[in-house]
Amino acid sequence: MANPTAAMLVIGDEILSGRTRDANMHHLAQALTARGIDLREVRMVADDAPAIEAAVQALSTGFDHVFTSGGIGPTHDDITADCVARALGAPIDIRDDARALLEVHYERQGTELNAARLRMARIPDGADLIENPISAAPGFTIGNVHVMAGVPAIFETMVASVLPKLTGGAPLLSETIRINRGEGDIAGPLAALAAANPDLSFGSYPFIQNGTYGANIVVRGTEARAVAAATAELAALFSDDGG
Amino acid sequence: MANPTAAMLVIGDEILSGRTRDANMHHLAQALTARGIDLREVRMVADDAPAIEAAVQALSTGFDHVFTSGGIGPTHDDITADCVARALGAPIDIRDDARALLEVHYERQGTELNAARLRMARIPDGADLIENPISAAPGFTIGNVHVMAGVPAIFETMVASVLPKLTGGAPLLSETIRINRGEGDIAGPLAALAAANPDLSFGSYPFIQNGTYGANIVVRGTEARAVAAATAELAALFSDDGG
Repeated sequence: MANPTAAMLVIGDEILSGRTRDANMHHLAQALTARGIDLREVRMVADDAPAIEAAVQALSTGFDHVFTSGGIGPTHDDITADCVARALGAPIDIRDDARALLEVHYERQGTELNAARLRMARIPDGADLIENPISAAPGFTIGNVHVMAGVPAIFETMVASVLPKLTGGAPLLSETIRINRGEGDIAGPLAALAAANPDLSFGSYPFIQNGTYGANIVVRGTEARAVAAATAELAALFSDDGG
Repeated sequence: MANPTAAMLVIGDEILSGRTRDANMHHLAQALTARGIDLREVRMVADDAPAIEAAVQALSTGFDHVFTSGGIGPTHDDITADCVARALGAPIDIRDDARALLEVHYERQGTELNAARLRMARIPDGADLIENPISAAPGFTIGNVHVMAGVPAIFETMVASVLPKLTGGAPLLSETIRINRGEGDIAGPLAALAAANPDLSFGSYPFIQNGTYGANIVVRGTEARAVAAATAELAALFSDDGG
């Protein structure tokens, strides 16, 4: 059975302007691979309502799961929750369960739960909250869309609480073999091996080290034996390189 | 006049599986911002022909420029050039000018220009070559699509040779002010300032440092005076924080 598929939507002007280097995509990619969920597409858009809504609709229709990152804080540029609700046709307002989480958090801090902070309790009808043990303001899951914070430490705790609830497939296994020849020498035999093993994928990642060309070949699949056999075959083909 | 718009398409299984952390998006984002071109969307897809072709069509229709990264090497998973040609309806074959570049390079190296390496001379009809001073295999520009290598050092030299040829707009200027208060305290006054200055954008990037909440507020715009005035107004609003 094929693994479930996923897409990610990274939201924020600061990513597209180059001010901030996104770190959440790489974290999620590794976590999904380990869980046996295939990340097929990532989109990054600005804090722009039509762009966010169009992306949520396209990705939630096209993939089993969508994970969003960013835009759920208290400031005027935090519009993700309302955009997701609109994209999915769900009503949204301040919800009592989310407000209660914020009340406890801010009372403990001695901070006023003002109108701006209350915006973080805007949760679509029918959504399940995703816990935020760091700063209380929850993420949420509605349909197949998981809405999470952009701050990496919070994003990572939310991923850790969401993923175990999802049905994963067979985790993708991989082995890497380093071949000290130019990719152009490797390409022919590698293409033949790939054609003979349609259940495996073969990636070639070239490098130049001290003036010498080489490539790391990564063999991926869900069957450990098949991955090991293909890797051994590659090693034998290029054994004069010391693989 | 509004600045030209751009999108980026990052191509490669290794990015989506989490094996490799993409670095090209952040580099391009900063280079485009400095050039006055607005990066509006990024997509990342696997080495999968239908996904690449659909993304090229959507992005080349929706934005003034599209920059792609990855998938132009000699191995079987390098399918970007053919996918871009198909997406734009352009014929593609081994082209003499690209082949000549490879011949010189491999003859100097004493390496055979075999069938796999020759694939890197597949260039769509009507495309302009983008120079690759590192490993010779060129990128190309066809219509509004700029096809570049995935290896960061090569990607960066290709960006450096393409961008000066494009018409840029007014570079986006920014000033950052650090405010040692929770975003929830900043949000109200910040929203009012944003509403009063529709030509500027105001981003709020929260942090927690030694248990204290704060945010960096970034004011962006193309008019230096307007950016400076709004930043000064913010500083005055929160002057008790030593901004």
